[in-house]
Order: sequence, then C-alpha cells, then structure tokens
Amino acid sequence: MTLAATSALPFKVADLSLAEAGRHQIRLAENEMPGLMALRSEFGETKPLSGARIAGSLHMTVQTAVLIETLVALGAHVRWASCNIFSTQDDAAAAIAVGPFGTEDEPAGVPVFAWKGETLDEYWWCAERIFDWSAEAAAAGATWAGPNMILDDGGDATLLVHKGREFELAGSVPAPGDADSHEYRIVLETLRRSLDLSVDRWTRIAAEIKGVTEETTTGVHRLYELAATGGLLFPAINVNDSVTKSKFDNKYGIRHSLPDGLNRATDVLIGGKTAFVAGYGDVGKGAAEALRGQGARVIVSEVDPICALQAAMDGYQVARIESVVGEVDIFVTGTGNYNVITTEHILAMKHLAIVANVGHFDNEIDMAGLESLAGAEKVRIKPQVHEWRLPTGRSVLVLSEGRLMNLGNATGHPSFVMSNSFANQVLAQIELYCFPERYPIGVYVLPKHLDEKVARLHLDALGVELTTLSPEQAGYIGVSVDGPYKVDHYRY
Amino acid sequence: MTLAATSALPFKVADLSLAEAGRHQIRLAENEMPGLMALRSEFGETKPLSGARIAGSLHMTVQTAVLIETLVALGAHVRWASCNIFSTQDDAAAAIAVGPFGTEDEPAGVPVFAWKGETLDEYWWCAERIFDWSAEAAAAGATWAGPNMILDDGGDATLLVHKGREFELAGSVPAPGDADSHEYRIVLETLRRSLDLSVDRWTRIAAEIKGVTEETTTGVHRLYELAATGGLLFPAINVNDSVTKSKFDNKYGIRHSLPDGLNRATDVLIGGKTAFVAGYGDVGKGAAEALRGQGARVIVSEVDPICALQAAMDGYQVARIESVVGEVDIFVTGTGNYNVITTEHILAMKHLAIVANVGHFDNEIDMAGLESLAGAEKVRIKPQVHEWRLPTGRSVLVLSEGRLMNLGNATGHPSFVMSNSFANQVLAQIELYCFPERYPIGVYVLPKHLDEKVARLHLDALGVELTTLSPEQAGYIGVSVDGPYKVDHYRY
Amino acid sequence: MTLAATSALPFKVADLSLAEAGRHQIRLAENEMPGLMALRSEFGETKPLSGARIAGSLHMTVQTAVLIETLVALGAHVRWASCNIFSTQDDAAAAIAVGPFGTEDEPAGVPVFAWKGETLDEYWWCAERIFDWSAEAAAAGATWAGPNMILDDGGDATLLVHKGREFELAGSVPAPGDADSHEYRIVLETLRRSLDLSVDRWTRIAAEIKGVTEETTTGVHRLYELAATGGLLFPAINVNDSVTKSKFDNKYGIRHSLPDGLNRATDVLIGGKTAFVAGYGDVGKGAAEALRGQGARVIVSEVDPICALQAAMDGYQVARIESVVGEVDIFVTGTGNYNVITTEHILAMKHLAIVANVGHFDNEIDMAGLESLAGAEKVRIKPQVHEWRLPTGRSVLVLSEGRLMNLGNATGHPSFVMSNSFANQVLAQIELYCFPERYPIGVYVLPKHLDEKVARLHLDALGVELTTLSPEQAGYIGVSVDGPYKVDHYRY
Amino acid sequence: MTLAATSALPFKVADLSLAEAGRHQIRLAENEMPGLMALRSEFGETKPLSGARIAGSLHMTVQTAVLIETLVALGAHVRWASCNIFSTQDDAAAAIAVGPFGTEDEPAGVPVFAWKGETLDEYWWCAERIFDWSAEAAAAGATWAGPNMILDDGGDATLLVHKGREFELAGSVPAPGDADSHEYRIVLETLRRSLDLSVDRWTRIAAEIKGVTEETTTGVHRLYELAATGGLLFPAINVNDSVTKSKFDNKYGIRHSLPDGLNRATDVLIGGKTAFVAGYGDVGKGAAEALRGQGARVIVSEVDPICALQAAMDGYQVARIESVVGEVDIFVTGTGNYNVITTEHILAMKHLAIVANVGHFDNEIDMAGLESLAGAEKVRIKPQVHEWRLPTGRSVLVLSEGRLMNLGNATGHPSFVMSNSFANQVLAQIELYCFPERYPIGVYVLPKHLDEKVARLHLDALGVELTTLSPEQAGYIGVSVDGPYKVDHYRY
Repeated sequence: MTLAATSALPFKVADLSLAEAGRHQIRLAENEMPGLMALRSEFGETKPLSGARIAGSLHMTVQTAVLIETLVALGAHVRWASCNIFSTQDDAAAAIAVGPFGTEDEPAGVPVFAWKGETLDEYWWCAERIFDWSAEAAAAGATWAGPNMILDDGGDATLLVHKGREFELAGSVPAPGDADSHEYRIVLETLRRSLDLSVDRWTRIAAEIKGVTEETTTGVHRLYELAATGGLLFPAINVNDSVTKSKFDNKYGIRHSLPDGLNRATDVLIGGKTAFVAGYGDVGKGAAEALRGQGARVIVSEVDPICALQAAMDGYQVARIESVVGEVDIFVTGTGNYNVITTEHILAMKHLAIVANVGHFDNEIDMAGLESLAGAEKVRIKPQVHEWRLPTGRSVLVLSEGRLMNLGNATGHPSFVMSNSFANQVLAQIELYCFPERYPIGVYVLPKHLDEKVARLHLDALGVELTTLSPEQAGYIGVSVDGPYKVDHYRY
Repeated sequence: MTLAATSALPFKVADLSLAEAGRHQIRLAENEMPGLMALRSEFGETKPLSGARIAGSLHMTVQTAVLIETLVALGAHVRWASCNIFSTQDDAAAAIAVGPFGTEDEPAGVPVFAWKGETLDEYWWCAERIFDWSAEAAAAGATWAGPNMILDDGGDATLLVHKGREFELAGSVPAPGDADSHEYRIVLETLRRSLDLSVDRWTRIAAEIKGVTEETTTGVHRLYELAATGGLLFPAINVNDSVTKSKFDNKYGIRHSLPDGLNRATDVLIGGKTAFVAGYGDVGKGAAEALRGQGARVIVSEVDPICALQAAMDGYQVARIESVVGEVDIFVTGTGNYNVITTEHILAMKHLAIVANVGHFDNEIDMAGLESLAGAEKVRIKPQVHEWRLPTGRSVLVLSEGRLMNLGNATGHPSFVMSNSFANQVLAQIELYCFPERYPIGVYVLPKHLDEKVARLHLDALGVELTTLSPEQAGYIGVSVDGPYKVDHYRY
Repeated sequence: MTLAATSALPFKVADLSLAEAGRHQIRLAENEMPGLMALRSEFGETKPLSGARIAGSLHMTVQTAVLIETLVALGAHVRWASCNIFSTQDDAAAAIAVGPFGTEDEPAGVPVFAWKGETLDEYWWCAERIFDWSAEAAAAGATWAGPNMILDDGGDATLLVHKGREFELAGSVPAPGDADSHEYRIVLETLRRSLDLSVDRWTRIAAEIKGVTEETTTGVHRLYELAATGGLLFPAINVNDSVTKSKFDNKYGIRHSLPDGLNRATDVLIGGKTAFVAGYGDVGKGAAEALRGQGARVIVSEVDPICALQAAMDGYQVARIESVVGEVDIFVTGTGNYNVITTEHILAMKHLAIVANVGHFDNEIDMAGLESLAGAEKVRIKPQVHEWRLPTGRSVLVLSEGRLMNLGNATGHPSFVMSNSFANQVLAQIELYCFPERYPIGVYVLPKHLDEKVARLHLDALGVELTTLSPEQAGYIGVSVDGPYKVDHYRY
Repeated sequence: MTLAATSALPFKVADLSLAEAGRHQIRLAENEMPGLMALRSEFGETKPLSGARIAGSLHMTVQTAVLIETLVALGAHVRWASCNIFSTQDDAAAAIAVGPFGTEDEPAGVPVFAWKGETLDEYWWCAERIFDWSAEAAAAGATWAGPNMILDDGGDATLLVHKGREFELAGSVPAPGDADSHEYRIVLETLRRSLDLSVDRWTRIAAEIKGVTEETTTGVHRLYELAATGGLLFPAINVNDSVTKSKFDNKYGIRHSLPDGLNRATDVLIGGKTAFVAGYGDVGKGAAEALRGQGARVIVSEVDPICALQAAMDGYQVARIESVVGEVDIFVTGTGNYNVITTEHILAMKHLAIVANVGHFDNEIDMAGLESLAGAEKVRIKPQVHEWRLPTGRSVLVLSEGRLMNLGNATGHPSFVMSNSFANQVLAQIELYCFPERYPIGVYVLPKHLDEKVARLHLDALGVELTTLSPEQAGYIGVSVDGPYKVDHYRY
C-alpha cells in the first residue's frame, strides 16, 4: 500500500498502518454488505455515476468506506466529511484516503475530512472542504465550483449550501441571535468567512447540484420544511423512509448497537435491570426488544397514543418518566425530540443510573442544563463515559456526552444494516443523477420496487429462500410476479 | 327479558335462554371494549347517526353485538347479517335480536339474519335481507327502498348493490361462466330472483347509500378496483388500513386467536413443534409471534423480499414450503392469496399435520383440490375439525374446512381487538354520514387524528400513562400538542 | 363397538356415542404420545406388568386413556378413578370403559369410576371402587383383597390405604375435629362405613401393595412426610421429580394450558394486559412465559430469593401482591401454598379482574373466605366461570371455582406433555413391580438413565437430531456414551 | 495514590495511571456488586477471615478486584494470580497491586501476579508465586510455608499442590509422556525446578491448607475425581453448583457476554444470522437466549436427550453440526467437551463464519488440528480475532484463538453476575476457614440457606420486592419462614 500522492488528504489520517488496519476491516465488512457488493456487480461495468461529483457528509466509518468505494466503482468522484464529531473511525478514514489499489502511479484515495473527536470548529471546517472541488476542477480543466450531488446525513451539507446562498443573496451573514446555539454561531462564522472570500460561491454551487439524498429523520424533516416553504433548491430523495432503511437501520440497527454501546461503555449487566425507553418509534422498538432480549424489564414512554398502545400490546409497561424515574437503572432516549430527560429527572435518578441517547441530537437529554447545574461535577471515567456527580450526592453515568451513544460508545450500526441503508443511498444517487426528469424539485421516497430490490439483494447472504408467485397468484392479488407487492401506504 | 314483537327476527335465533346467555357475554365484552363504550359516552347525547339506516354485514359475534348497540346508541337504525357462514355466535345473535331493554311495549331488538352454520344459499338470502327495509319504511311512513349506509366486511354487501344495479341496467343477469365459483352462481341466482321481482330495486338502493365503511383487506381491495375502473357508486372508507385496525386486528388479533383455535380444535402441544407460517404480513407476524411464544420453531414463507427480510431479522427461518413440508407439524396460511397450500403439498405432509387458515378465503388451501382427490376420505373428528385420510396412508387435520379457523375453531378476535376495529368503524360511519362533503366518491382511510383517537380511547383500560408534549416540544418537531403526531406514510 | 358386558362400568359413562367420540380422540392422542407408544413397542411382547393389578387415581382424560391402554398392553389389570371432581373427560372415560376392541365375546373395557362434575361424596365413592377387586378376584379364582400397585396423583388413593389401615388398627374411625375440612369429614365417613363392613380390609390391601408411583408435588410431599415419620407402608417412586416430568409437565404444560384455559373461559385478549403470577417455580415460569408470549406485562411474586432473582433476571417485575393488586387484569396462582390470594386482595382488584389457579388446591385463592363474604354474590357466566359481585360494586371472574383452571376450563396438559409424565409412570410401575429388591420401603426418584430414556423416546416425533458422543469424548467427560450424562444434582 | 512499597508487586503492573483507571472501574463495579458490599457490611467488623492466607487463582479482572478487597476487608491476607493467560485486566491488577488507600506509610496493595497476554511459562510462574508467602512469613515472624486457603478457578492452584506433593513423595518428577500436552510439560518443568530447591515444599504447603473453594465445572470435576480416588488432600467447596453461581454465572453471564464479545470482536449484525450453539446446558441456554434476543435463528446441538428435548421445547431447531454446518454464520461452543468443532467442520463452513468458544478449554474447537492443517494461514485482524484462510479458498474468523471469547474478546462476566459467584466464594471461604469441623475431607456444595442468602443480598439493587410467608403458610408447606424453601434436589 502506498500513500496517495494528493494534497487532498486530510491532515490527521495519512497513516499507513492505520490505513492497513482499516483495509482489513473494509474487506471483512464487504462480506457483510451484500447489497453494496451486488450493486458493484450490477453497475460496475456501465458506471451510471460517471461524471457525478458527490459531496458526502455521513459518519466516516468502515461501512461508509464500503459505500464510498461502491460510489467510486460506479463512476463517481467523491469528497467526504463525517456528520458527527465523534463518529469517525480513523482507520477507515485512513484506508479510504489511501485507497485500496493506491500506487505511486495510480493514487486511488478519496479526499476525506474526518477524524474521531473533532471540535465543532473543525467539524464545520471539514464540512466546507467537501464543497471545495478546486483541485479536481483544475485537474480536469473544468470550471465548476463544487459538487453536483450531495449525499447527506442530518442535513448539514444541505444546510451549508442553502444558508450560504441565502446570505450571499442577502449580501451579509446575520449576527447570531440570543437564542442561537453555539454550533449555529460557528455555522454563521464559517459562512461569514466564505462571504468575505466570495460573494457567489454557494450560489454557484447550489446551481450545479442535481440533488441530495438524505439519510436521517432529522435531515428529511428539514427538507420537507424547506420544500413546504418553497426554499428547497434541488430535488431530494428521502432515503430515510425506505422500508429497508427506516425499519432496518432504526429498529434492527439500534437493537444491535444499543446493548453493544452499553456494554462497551459500562460493562453493566443488563439482565435484571429496569430500563426506560423514551419513544416507541422504530428506534424505541429496537431498543426495547434488545433490552428485553438481555433480560431487562423495560418501561416505555410515548406521546403518540398509537405507539403507546403498540408498546402495551408488546407487553411493556408504558409510563411517564416522572412516575418511574427513581426505579430505573438505564435510561435510553430515542424520540427525536428535545428535553426528553431534563435536569430535574436526572436529579431524581438512582445512584449511577446510566443515561444514553440513541435518538438524534444531544438535546434529547438536557445536557446544557446539566452543564450549567450548580454543584454538578463531571468526571471522565473513560472516553465517552462520564460520571456526573450531582449535588444530591448521587451520580449518573452519561454516555457520549448525550450524543448518539451507538456511535460514540460502539461502532454504529453494523455493516449489514448499513448495507441496506447505503444500497438505498446508491440507488437514490443513481435516480437523481441519471433520471433528473423524474424528479422536479421536491422531496421523494424511493419507488417501492427499488426498496424491494434492496431487500432482495440481502436475502441470499442470510440463506433466505424467497417464494415466487405463480402468474395466477400474482393476477389473483393484482400485482406483477416481480413486484412491487404492496400498496404505497403498507406499513410492514 | 321479553321477545321483541317484530317480524324481523331471523328464524333460528328467537330463543330467550340463548339471548340471556348472549346478554351476559355482551355485558362482559363491554368491559373489554373501552373504545366503543367511550364513543357511547361521547356521542350518546348528540346522536350523530340519527337518521342513519345501516346495513351491516360482519361476523355476528358478541363483539359485533356491542358494535351494533353502539351504533343504535348513536341514533342509527340497523339490520345485520354475518359475512361468514360459520362465524355467527347464536347467543349473541339472539341477544341482539331481543335487545337489551326489550319489553312488550318497547321492543328493542335489532333485525339479525345470521346463525352458525349457514348454507351458502342461506348466506346470500341473509345478505339480501339487510337491504329490505320495507317494514321500517312502512312503520316510518317513508318511501325509501333500503339502507343509506353500509358497514361491510369482505365486500359482499357492497358487491350485491353493485352487481344488482349492474344487472338491472343491463336488463338481465348473465348465465354463470365455466370459471365461476359455486358461490358466485348463487349470487347470480339471488340477483336473478330479485330482477324478476323488481327492475330497479338495487338501482334505487344504490342511489340512497351515502357510503360504505369496509373492514378487511379483501373488501378494500375490491373497493380500490371499483374506484380504479370508475365503477364505485358511493364513497368508501377503508377502515382496514387504520393503524388501530390493521396492526391491532391483524397482528394482535391473530396472535391471540390462532393458538386459541389450534388448542380448541386439537389440544395439541404447540411447544417443540415445527410450525410453518405462509405470509409475513401483519397476520403472519402475529401468527409467528404467537407460535414462538408457545415454544414452537417457526418457519416463514414470503414472496415479498422486504417482508422476507423482516422475518429473517426477527429470527425466523425463511423457506419455501417445498423445502420443509415434510418436517412441519402445523401449517398456517395468512397470505390473502390462493393455492398457497396445494394438494401436492398436503400429500407430502407428516401424518396428522395440522392445516389451518387465518388468511381470508378457504382457497388459501386448495380445498377444492383436496375434495376432488381420488382416494382421499374426510372423517369428522368434531365440529370444524376433519381428518383427511390420504391415499398415502397418512392423514392431515384440516381446521374449519380451510376457512378462517380463528372464527371457526375459536371465537374470532377478542373484544379488545374488536373494540379498536369497531371504534374505527363507528368513527368512519359518522364521517361518511355527517360529513358527506368531505368525501366525494372514492376510497379513503380515516384521518390520522381519528386513528390516534381510537388508540387514545383504549389506553386507560390498559393502565397506560401517556406522556404529553410540552408546547415547546411540539413546536420543535412541528406537530400540535394534541396530534396528529406522525406523517401519513409513517409505518409504526 | 360393543358395550363391554361387565358390571364394573361406572353408572354415567356407558354411552356408545360418547365412547366413539372418545375413541377418535384417543387415536389422535396416540400420535402425540410417542413415549407411551414406544413403550408399547418395546414391552408389548414381554408384558412386564403381567400379574400387576393397578389401582389408578389420576385425572380421567384422553391422555390417561392412552396411559391406561399402555399399562394394559404391558400386561396389567387396571381399575381407574379420577383424582379431581372436574377433570374427567366423559368421552375418554366412556371409551376406556368400552375398550378399543370390545366385542360381546371379548369385552375389553377397563372399569372406570369417573365423570365430569362429581360431588365430593361421589368422588370418594369412586376412589374406594378402585380398591374393590372382588369381581376380578372371583373371576380369577383368587383370594386377594385388592390391587397390588397404586398409580396415584395427589395421594388420595395412598391416603385411603394408609388411613384405612390406621383406623382398622385403632379399631375405630375418629370423629372429625373442628379444624377438619368438609372433604376430610367425607373421607372419615367413607372409612367408617368400610370399618363397619370389614375390620381388616385396608390392612389386607396394604399388605398386598408392592408400591405406589406418585404424579404430583402434593402427593410426593405427603409421601416424604410419611417416610419421615416411619408411616410409609410400601415403596414409592416420586415420578414428579423426574426432569421429564417436572420441567415438562409443570413448565411446558402450564405454558400451554394456562392461556388455553383463559381463552376458553373468558375470550379476553391477553395482549396488553397486566398479569400477576404468584410463584416462580416451574409452574410460574411456564405461566409467565406463556403470558409474555401473548403480549401481557407480567409481574411475579416470590418468597424464595433465588426464584425471585431468577424472575428478575428473566425481565419480570417482582412485587408483592399488595403493591400492584389494583393494576392487574389477570391473577394466576402457582405456588402450592394457601391463601396466596386473600379476600382482602380480591376486594382491591379491578372490575372484572380474572382470578385463576394453576397451582394445586382451591385454597391458593381463599375461596372459603370469598364464599362467606357478606354481600358477595356468585353469578354463573358459564360452566366453570363465575362472576363474583363484590360489596364494593366491582366484580371479579373466578375460574373453575378456584380449582385448577387448566383442567376445569381447558383440557389439562396436552398429550405430548402427558406422554412424558406417563412414560415415567409406566417405567416407575415396571421398576417397583419387577424389581422390588431395588426399592426397600422409601421414596425414590427414577434413576437418571430412565429419565433420559423418557426424553429420548420423544425426540423423533419433534424432528430432533441427537448428537452422539464419540467414545473419546465420553471418556473425556467421564460418562458412558449412552449416558447418564449428568450428575444427580444437575439442574437442567 | 502512591505506589505500595513492597517487592511483591508483579513486574508489569506497577503503573500508577493504570492503577488509577482501575480504581475508577472498581468503584463503579462496587455499585454493581451488592452481594460483596453487603458481606463487607455484615462481616467487616468481626473479620471472620482474620488469619486466613488465601492463594487466589482466578481471572484478574475488575470484579475480582472487588472480591479481593472484600476478602481483605474480612481480615484475610491474599496473593493472587489469574487462571487464564488472556483474561487479566491490567488496570484492575494495577489498582489491586497499589491498593485503595496506599500511602508510603500504609502500603495497602495486594501481591498480584497477572497481566494480559501471559505466555504459558509466565502463567505457571505466576501460579507458583501465590504459594510463596516467604515475605509475609518473614514480616510476621512466622514459619509457615504458604497459604492456608485456596480460592481456585479451574483447579490449577489445587493441581500444583497435589502434583507437587505427589512428586515430592515419589522423589522425582516424571518425564513427560508422548500424550502430554505442551502445557502439562510446563507444569512438570515447574515442579522439577521446585523439587530441585526443596524436597518437601508442596508437602508442607498441602498440610497447612484448610480447604479450597472452587469456581468452575472443570475444577469441580477434578475435585470429585480426586475425592473418588482418595487423593483429595483437604476439604473443598464446590461453589460452581450453588444455584446463584451456576444458573447466574453460566446462564445469565453468557447471555450478557457472548453478544458483547461477538460485537467487540467482529461488529457483525447478529440479527438475521443463523447461529449454532453446541450444548444446551446453562451456558448453551444463555447463549441461545442472547442470540435469539438479537434476532438470530438459533440451532442447538446436544448429546443429552433431556437437554435436547428442552431445546426443542424452547423453540430451537436441534441438529447435528454435520447437518447444518454450511448454513451457519456464527458457531458457539459451550459443552465442556473437546473436538466439538473439528477441522472437518471448519472446512465445510461458509466464508467468514465466526467460530467462538464460551465453554472451557480451547480444545472445544480443534485448534491443534487447525494449526497443523496444511495450507491454512492465520491472519491477525485485531487482538484476539484471527482470520484463518483455508485451503478451500474460504476463511473463518476464530475468536480468542479458540479460548473463552467472553474473556478474551470482552471483559468476562459483568460485575453483577460475579457478585453472585463471588459472594458464594466468600461464604465458602468463611465456612471452610471458620467451621472446619463441618467439613471433613470431601467435596461439598454450600448449604441451601447460604445459596438463598446470596440471592437475597442481590434483590434490593434490582428493586425486587420479596414476599414473606406467614408462619401459617410456612407451616403449610413445611418450611421455616426464613427458608431454606426448597428440597436439595430442586432444579430451579
């Protein structure tokens, strides 16, 4: 393996031994990502993504490495950042930066801007880097300003383009408001610096982008809001709501990585413990199943009466956190909302109760409130595990500083789950890039036949025998023998 | 209790001791149907269904009795038939026919046309009766021909109106085709008799009907087909696809009543047995969970790769029936398709394998093929349980003659499940009857806030504490504090 | 089928159509009782029980019919009573009374004294009948007074012999004490009548008996007490503590028949309900698993800290009944103790809470207290289901009058479970009858190799492939290739 | 924290930062080890182990640190080695070596001889060190040769004493036989060196030892063999067969640590995979439950028909490895036997199948055969994870080189499980040390009331409410209100 001779390498990952370790893991992960490997087989020759310049913003893990190399195998050029300051696996980033076949003659690395433990300033610096295609443009003798596709997770890359263009049109970046978060202030600062350098950089980038494929609930939510207000600048595919993404990534992924993160963080026996799961959407369903599967008693909270009734029908106690806070050993949030666990709740918890978030932002738990709590002391037990000593004399263990603990304390979703998500991403990138006429500006889910295709690509690896409808049976229920088999509103 | 002095009573159920037994059960069922009872509390005063004349075609069980009395409490007049020849509980029918408060002065019974074990001829005679409102019209001095609302399960009542009108417009009823089933020939015969008596009876009925609310997949499927071809004559609400119907009725209902039916029919230990579940939709999911919960090893078959992948992720072996037929003790069909279990499959089964259908029609199992199989002998073990002695020297046990065994061998879905389904039915009847302007001809699902309302009405009875969003939290995720909480495509 | 020409037939079961129905069920049950059928194959030729005269006292069900016919096939003569006033299946009793091959020339029926719904007087009359072998003795020209083996369930047959002899030695039957139960007074009355007729009948019977094999915890407990005080008159094998009896009968049997009984009795949806299981022994473990498998939330109570810890480790809330009585929908007792549910508890329950006993005697629930409760009214809903209207205005549903509801409301353990228990019974009868030298007076469990043999006889029917140790592997762990594989204290 | 000024510190763990990290973990573990902390409270004043000199040989983990400090708190002096070359957690060892309160004046460390990744030579050197109490004897002005108690796991410490004395009596150490393992040769070499230095060292040590408490099946098995042949030199308590040890450690511990180890080693999604569990004892039961709880399909193999039947009744397919080897993704051995997975099996596995042992020795998997397989290549993926490239072109992943992967790839059983095991150890040490008259030479299990006591000490931490028998209820079932509650042969 030789270091790729390109200036695009990020500054901390150019480590060949790291890269080699990452390469081992990528090879093993490929065995667990049959969906991506099948797409390489299917489209490796025709290279439908030739000409695509993809700005990727998604946790820089081993699995993402297999995604990136699949995109490259399908013809795309790629620049990559992580979408979370803690989630990068440095060896995977290094391996991707170096590339699998890299020689001095053929540097095959992909420009990656991500490392484990970024500061927020560094995070947004990285995010900006994936839009800077000047080296590639120079090499190609082209005049484009940036990427022509975005592959996004959480919407930060999309935000940068939309806000950047908005401020360019306005001629200035607004001063931060009192209510603006620390992070948003950094975004404003980033764009202010950009505006100083160019008055139309983001406007030109926005014009070049053919579409974005978005990975998560939060990012999709932002896209629907943009679309509703007419502010969306390019078509978007909501990958999150493919069944093979949402059910599999959220439910089965969390089922796997929640106990994994709890174990790596605390080594606490889950069996016999009382666990509280806030939210009984797909994430909560996976969390509750995993905890029960390890012998915990699970109590669920919900605001949606339908999901609450589902939780009851699945045999869980459904209670408000206030009713049970003092008897719970492990708290898990998976709501997508904020202030689900407040400082008041934390003060009422048992000594050394564990507080873990698998929802989205760190504000599911009121970390800000905890940080400003008089008399509270934060003691680092090990990376991503902190004991908060409270004025009550009790402590709680907060994992990953309230951020996604399945990423911070474990290694995120396992490869097989991500193979489902990422096969959706790849198909969505192909749809938007190759068939722009099908997608006027708006937010779309993938057509059901592609969702079913993603599932189909994963069956052999699990030894699943699929039954085939006879033409008569297909006719009887009014579907094609090859699907799609369900109406769009089918809930699985 | 006094027998209601009305000629509308069906001919076999006017039995006061039966009625008394049924009344006991209705009272107990009311405790398990908090949704319907809550609707009586909410709407008992305002009686939104005043003036409604509902033709009901739905299994005439104890639970349906609570539905009927809820409709009556909300102001409706009702005539009722069962939608299945085996599913009537005679005591429930008797109790409804007699009515809860019936005195000689105040006959409170509802005209019911249903008994356990109808012939197909009797079945369609009953179905026709619910459209004959002449006695009521006479009593009211009105000129209407029939009902103004249909509450349907499987679509037979809707079929009768549509076919009746079609043949009236055509001026004749066609001769049955070679491919027509025995049952369809009876439908044709029924309508031929009708046409002899009146050239426009169904046409006038169709014109009076404000809408139909449909209970099941099969009926809904027919409605969408009618709508697609422009043949639908009045608006329809697809109750089946309310979450509180489909997930609860199909999944949780089957989870309950499949083992119940197996036990009542066979008393065979489920634990340790190998069970095969054809189809992993909601019905199959409930069936598989129930069987596993009793210690069976479950093998699933699927044609839809997404559902197949779900089954695998839930830990089930997924195989084609041909691969495992010889090692299975209990076969369960829940596909909604036909010929899922063929005569060939049956001939390859273990001695005394159990064959049970919880899907829809009896043709999920090729009963016709079995009946015409040379050398096969059918031995009645007890009601709804037959041993088929096969030419191989082995036997299989077929439950409920291949029809829905949860109805034939047990007592159908339990009251709590039906309280969910039926609360949807009642709300759907109110919507179509009170707000016709909202529903031009077409097929609709209930608005999500009503679906959530149904769930909400069932929480207290289960001791569920619902968490309430703060206004800030609701704003954060962009919903109202009172819901609806999810986008329409949310899958639960 | 011809009625057996013997005066030994009990007075209510000589019904040929009942017998025919029973015969069908016996044939089906044989398919589910591979252990017994295998013993018929193995010992049908050599007939090790030739000469055995077995007095059987065990629930007279279809499964017991297969046991009885197995004992007969192995050469024994048998007289049978039930050990519970509600548990007889009349068709099974009739079939056994008539016999499978009965012709006028060859009456093959077995004298059976049992019917569903005996009074306590009738019960003890029946119990006495199985010791009256005068007809058989006359036919054989023999002088014995009674049986030479007892097969007992609960110890009533054993009690009769021991008490009968005790009072004969004392010369009189004592007057009942104030604390004596109604039932014990009947026992005393029965023995007083016997003493009037013969001063040494039970003494002679006791002397002839070579041993007893006992089915249940309660009976075994009595035997150990007798042995401890030196009062035991003949050797006993504790069948209850064979692994293939206790784990299978108690745990897997209850897992099956508890929900079955709940369903048949109430048709109440178990899913979503809160269930309380008193006792987490094998019976409680099976009950809790079944209820969870149906989607109930299960709360367990225990007095033994080890079992309590097991329940917690299995994910159940463990609480005292007082702490949760008001939130429970379904109460299940399985402790083997008494007054586990008191009248006070019952008064604190939710309206229409279900109260069910799967432990042993009806005093697990304080039925006596309930019956004497001022203002309580007992309303029969259907056989074995009573609504108790309480002075609080609420009601509870009591199943099987507090007796074993898996017998009273369902059909007891399924055949496969009983095949395990009964194969132990048959092997135990052979051991005591054929190898008396191995068993001086005392209480024994079956040797482990016979316990393993019972398991082995049931594997093929379930498609289980057993792995065989290589001689080297067997040597490595110090066992024989053929077993036994475990030390005696192994807990499974 | 100050380094303890003692020469007894092992050579690799005297690292203060390591010690500090370990101290943090010990403090957290104490919260999860309520049994040990309760024993400190109960016996901390009376110090029943005063004068005890314990040679401990047991995995040197954080949990063992809490055990060691409990023994010290009860008055004992302790020297410690690990019983496995991979299982030491260096930070725990360092913390123990330094001690919690260590100052220059008051060095409180315990002599520890253990580090992660010992060679076999180093392992046996460490094992010998725990018998060398010369420094302590000198400090105390005493003449004893070694410890007076052994706390053993696997029996290596006990072996050393027995073999040492045997060879001293024989006057020489035999030459290794052809069949002797590499490890046994090292044992012989170790004892040969010892014999060169002293002709009676082990003889004197053996005479001083009052007893051994043994942790595991394997060690217990050796003890029973020694006892059977009359070779046992001192009494032994079989801690392994306390219910609160065997059920909790084996079943619940493996349920926790198997998926933990799989995740840390491979990050492979368990859901949807086919897993094979060899052995359905307590370890296999825990393994199967964990894998199913994560959504795997589990196939079990067994040689014991009772356990095989249990597996079937729990819903698992039971098959021989040969029948399913090609469809399995994850192999887990938990039999306690050897050659359970042979080279032949490995050659037939899927590409990248995972092979993991949670039984006992590495010979459950034929690692020796694999190592000598022509054409096989071993590639290190990361510590304790090796890819074996096979001549077939396929690979398998072998965890922890075939040794216990729950120790090698994870952190062993969690604290709460070990609190149960170790509370048994402490009580057993007290029994043997304080009440030698109760225990003539032989192998004993702890009396049931102590087993129940261990359980009782763990209930509060889990929020378990224990129900108390009334004196009448206790009398009714013939037990004391305070227990023990079960007969000795009860199986839980």
